[in-house]
Amino acid sequence: MKILVTNDDGIAARGIHALISELKHIAEIYVASPDRERSATGHSITVFEPIKAVKKKIADVSGAWVIGGTPVDCVKLAISRLAPEDIDLVISGINHGPNLGTDVLYSGTVSAAAEGVIMGKPSIAVSLDSYEEEMDFAYAAKFVKRMVLTLMKTGIESQTLLNVNIPPLPEDQIKGIRITRLGTRNYENLFDERQDPRGNSYYWMGGGIKDEEQDPESDVAALEDSFISITPINLDLTDYHLIQQYKVKFKDYIYTPGDSHDIP
Amino acid sequence: MKILVTNDDGIAARGIHALISELKHIAEIYVASPDRERSATGHSITVFEPIKAVKKKIADVSGAWVIGGTPVDCVKLAISRLAPEDIDLVISGINHGPNLGTDVLYSGTVSAAAEGVIMGKPSIAVSLDSYEEEMDFAYAAKFVKRMVLTLMKTGIESQTLLNVNIPPLPEDQIKGIRITRLGTRNYENLFDERQDPRGNSYYWMGGGIKDEEQDPESDVAALEDSFISITPINLDLTDYHLIQQYKVKFKDYIYTPGDSHDIP
Repeated sequence: MKILVTNDDGIAARGIHALISELKHIAEIYVASPDRERSATGHSITVFEPIKAVKKKIADVSGAWVIGGTPVDCVKLAISRLAPEDIDLVISGINHGPNLGTDVLYSGTVSAAAEGVIMGKPSIAVSLDSYEEEMDFAYAAKFVKRMVLTLMKTGIESQTLLNVNIPPLPEDQIKGIRITRLGTRNYENLFDERQDPRGNSYYWMGGGIKDEEQDPESDVAALEDSFISITPINLDLTDYHLIQQYKVKFKDYIYTPGDSHDIP
Repeated sequence: MKILVTNDDGIAARGIHALISELKHIAEIYVASPDRERSATGHSITVFEPIKAVKKKIADVSGAWVIGGTPVDCVKLAISRLAPEDIDLVISGINHGPNLGTDVLYSGTVSAAAEGVIMGKPSIAVSLDSYEEEMDFAYAAKFVKRMVLTLMKTGIESQTLLNVNIPPLPEDQIKGIRITRLGTRNYENLFDERQDPRGNSYYWMGGGIKDEEQDPESDVAALEDSFISITPINLDLTDYHLIQQYKVKFKDYIYTPGDSHDIP
């Protein structure tokens, strides 16, 4: 089995090395990671500048590249040019901090895994729900290894993207696994305004998460309840329910060739 | 009616000014646009640097800001701090180039509109299916105005995101409107490898779109058939179908408090 490992915290982050040190026991590992932290880059790609890829030696890893680009660049470049064609699985993480609810849209970690699926590989994004500097990734990495062993038995289809969030707790305090839906994450006091020495305003993005009632089936609730959350993610963003509704809303204005209806 | 206009091609792009010049006849306009082109930035946000916002005068516009950030930053900052609280609608565009199928994930234009929905406002992303430099945005802008007038009559809910793509054709050659689903966009020869003067490899992202059979209900097919495509987009990325499947796959490993099951 061949696994491509990536992340958005950069090649120096502890999370990716914790992951590698567990996965190398069960698979041939390839690594493509950004040269520096690229959190909150979402699904951005580098199209107006060239992307550098520098080969790096990592113990027990079959091939590793440090990429001067976004997490999505890393996966695109590794799967199409750098790594072997027959990569079986992409794993992105372990992110230092959670990726829950609508926040997955901003997440470089989840976007890198999403790109794995776009490139035809089943993919898993893994995040540890803690920003604490000294946080230990060992248990989270061990869990990912066990999860991959389970999926090797039960199967994982190529179009599958799983978003995994792990509570920052000792193993014996984790209550189990829940297969969840994405919850809600709304922020308050999003921007902090400052003035530069010339009196011009600038803003820092920040803010706190609004305390909201969560669906008990959600990823947010699972973490609050000390469960590991696994959310299957769908990359077809079409809202099929609304298609019918908008066909009705625009029905007076939909014209077909030969039809006498005019554009609105 | 108050409309926030944004884009990812930057404040100097012709597409946003074409849009403003039509919409100002039907609504009070506010503008928050990046200071330069920010295409392919996806849903990235600026969290490690401060964001500058400079007020700008635009004729017949009630408030305009040029933002030193991504398209999503523009919408977050405008809705939470710069524009009036009672913005009714966010319109992002008109993008110079299409935003179809899975490519919507990379699109700054669509991501800006998605952020409008996250901030509680119904939002529309608009793209003109042409990269031609001298392309005329006038008809596309006129269509958006008519579309907004239609929605003012038929209603648009706050959680609604519509992705609109317009063929680069004279008005009398456009065959109508189709309410569509997202199609597929796969690329071939994604990277072009070069060598720097010291012999190190670097890569340009590029490549061509693979010619694939398209679902006739898709946005890609609509454009190929000279129709305007309107795709409703859903930002709950949960794959509800897979939840059940993964509950089964992991059932031997799901333990609840007091349960004797062990973690895998």
